Amino acid sequence: MRTRPLKVALLGCGVVGSEVARIMTTHADDLAARIGAPVELAGVAVRRPAKVREGIDPSLVTTDATALVKRGDIDVVVEVIGGIEPARSLITTAFEHGASVVSANKALLAQDGAALHAAAEEHGRDLYYEAAVAGAIPLIRPLRESLAGDKVNRVLGIVNGTTNFILDKMDSTGAGYQEALDEATALGYAEADPTADVEGFDAAAKAAILAGIAFHTRVRLDDVYREGMTEVTAADFRSAKEMGCTIKLLAICERSADGTSVTARVHPAMIPLSHPLASVRGAYNAVFVESDAAGQLMFYGPGAGGSPTASAVLGDLVAVCRNRLNGATGPGESAYADLTVSPMGEVVTRYHISLDVADKPGVLAQVATVFAEHGVSIDTVRQQGKDGEASLVVVTHRASDASLSGTVEALRKLDTVRGVASIMRVEGE
Amino acid sequence: MRTRPLKVALLGCGVVGSEVARIMTTHADDLAARIGAPVELAGVAVRRPAKVREGIDPSLVTTDATALVKRGDIDVVVEVIGGIEPARSLITTAFEHGASVVSANKALLAQDGAALHAAAEEHGRDLYYEAAVAGAIPLIRPLRESLAGDKVNRVLGIVNGTTNFILDKMDSTGAGYQEALDEATALGYAEADPTADVEGFDAAAKAAILAGIAFHTRVRLDDVYREGMTEVTAADFRSAKEMGCTIKLLAICERSADGTSVTARVHPAMIPLSHPLASVRGAYNAVFVESDAAGQLMFYGPGAGGSPTASAVLGDLVAVCRNRLNGATGPGESAYADLTVSPMGEVVTRYHISLDVADKPGVLAQVATVFAEHGVSIDTVRQQGKDGEASLVVVTHRASDASLSGTVEALRKLDTVRGVASIMRVEGE
Repeated sequence: MRTRPLKVALLGCGVVGSEVARIMTTHADDLAARIGAPVELAGVAVRRPAKVREGIDPSLVTTDATALVKRGDIDVVVEVIGGIEPARSLITTAFEHGASVVSANKALLAQDGAALHAAAEEHGRDLYYEAAVAGAIPLIRPLRESLAGDKVNRVLGIVNGTTNFILDKMDSTGAGYQEALDEATALGYAEADPTADVEGFDAAAKAAILAGIAFHTRVRLDDVYREGMTEVTAADFRSAKEMGCTIKLLAICERSADGTSVTARVHPAMIPLSHPLASVRGAYNAVFVESDAAGQLMFYGPGAGGSPTASAVLGDLVAVCRNRLNGATGPGESAYADLTVSPMGEVVTRYHISLDVADKPGVLAQVATVFAEHGVSIDTVRQQGKDGEASLVVVTHRASDASLSGTVEALRKLDTVRGVASIMRVEGE
Repeated sequence: MRTRPLKVALLGCGVVGSEVARIMTTHADDLAARIGAPVELAGVAVRRPAKVREGIDPSLVTTDATALVKRGDIDVVVEVIGGIEPARSLITTAFEHGASVVSANKALLAQDGAALHAAAEEHGRDLYYEAAVAGAIPLIRPLRESLAGDKVNRVLGIVNGTTNFILDKMDSTGAGYQEALDEATALGYAEADPTADVEGFDAAAKAAILAGIAFHTRVRLDDVYREGMTEVTAADFRSAKEMGCTIKLLAICERSADGTSVTARVHPAMIPLSHPLASVRGAYNAVFVESDAAGQLMFYGPGAGGSPTASAVLGDLVAVCRNRLNGATGPGESAYADLTVSPMGEVVTRYHISLDVADKPGVLAQVATVFAEHGVSIDTVRQQGKDGEASLVVVTHRASDASLSGTVEALRKLDTVRGVASIMRVEGE
């Protein structure tokens, strides 16, 4: 074993960073044996240097992250500060000064992954980011290595623990969105400002990263259709139950039937209770991957939290250090397929539509005609009426999102349709 | 991209080999783009050269596997013939002549993994074998790379599809073992001689491989306690149902509570219906991995079959080819921890014991005394009697296998115990 240590700079020492530092210290011997050389924490960049950080030598702490990544003797920079800047500049500077980078920064990777990969390649360094998607669950490595000889057609999963906790709570207790969110906040599963989670921004960033790797095509955050779950109601859950379904916020990356284009989207959807994703409880994450040869694989585990995310960071750290000792680099960006990223209108799926309609003869015929005119085939209709008002629940066969939108627009213009109570996609069949 | 192709020799062209060859041909462009150089099928060693193999150039086919691996221009040897010899000699010869090796051979890896890794290392070559455990499910790579910075404490899973198909059938239909086996055979899920599957040899080989990687310790096939599932009866399933359980053949690799030793075992066990492994149906595989930082991860997918296994082989092929172009090698054997591999007697778990006893007062007290004398604490007892005969079902708290064996031995000596109808471990809680 090499005795000269590899030097690691840690950018950020919050929930994840402090756990990375702790494991680097307590498991130093194991890490050295697995890497083939000791690893040394050479510096920790923080915003609040006065805060006491147990187990971290205060002399390593600095507020000058830029100076730290420019030192020149750093082998690996671990970036766990999150956000776009200064993370992006620090990572780029790290590559320029000879370091490889392990990052957990999904927002940055989703927005600027291509540029960061290019910088890594230019300087012959590694950029690893298993922790950016689904915490401890190995997903990036299986997709870019284990399935490198296969053709992935679909990635479908629950990649945000906060929203899964809220939806699971709504499902199991009948609570409304706000009540379930309040409980998630009280228990620390939701942040004070939950926008990034509940509006699907976090899941959309992960979808962009997964789609890019799965399809060997650049998929940016802007390419991902995104719908949050703040408008899911207790009534939607009741409808779902009547169909033998539950509701999950899903990230779905798909190759088109002809194989030439891909789509990526995040939205709430009904899935059958028999689908394995339906039983993913609390803040857990789970992702299905469907490929030509492997068939259907599922990966399940804790999607967030300090320790699980640190596990993923440290796995990458070991890999990057091994590469460094080998004088090699791991797989970089793979975007050679360069497939078209299609807009949401081209997505084909099933829909569950609730309409408030007048309770009089001929309404169903009118509604059915509108669906037929837009080429959307109806699977089942359920009609419930009382006091001159009625509700009509339509479940469609597979149709394009554009056709469904056209249908809904036309339905809204019917005199007999008082309102469209809800529209939800049905997935997982 | 490099234009000179990397040369691949394929040893074996059965269900898996022919699928590897097919994908190498049909996905040649994708593989080249992902590797950074084309890969060329340079030779295929088979036993029956006359057999027509669609899509394979007959001029590549040879019966002389040794000459093929000795050619000297082969970059990667893919070994999918299985069994100990000639596979072992061919792999060793391949390393000596400069090739890296991708293997799907669980029996060989479990028996001689250490020697093969040493040969690979001696010659600076790679030995990859994702396909040896659980088919297409990425397990080896997550364990040896994604979790390389974590401490794995337990691997628990269903790693044999044939036996899971049989047990699932027994569970869902109430069929006996023989009836379910006959159906598995008729449907092609079981081989004409099912011994390797139903007696747990296949699962034990996989347990040895998984334990070795998970605990950075050499675990040989002989170190794995093995009990098949041929004696599981319809009555056992009825008992399991009464406990809210089902029965699965599990491979379990555990670190001891004090961290200094490990055990590996394969046997049928009751698991609660609420445990995710309980709902793994048909020939699917699923493996739980528990580690300090990541927590509980699950990997699920098809555990066998030509295409899924080929997917795993090709993922390894891409990785090994990339390493080759990089002039590097991937992670080799990691056995530095060198923990003690303890015998079955030291395993601690729960037990479900069915006794046939005389239906008279005082029997329960006698039986309970025997458990107490051996330090095995009883959780629940259920007594059913008719016509002077009774059955007593005891479920214990956690106890060592040795204590339980001592208890059972003493129970057999009691006059009032007519027989021990069944003993089954209870896992997954």
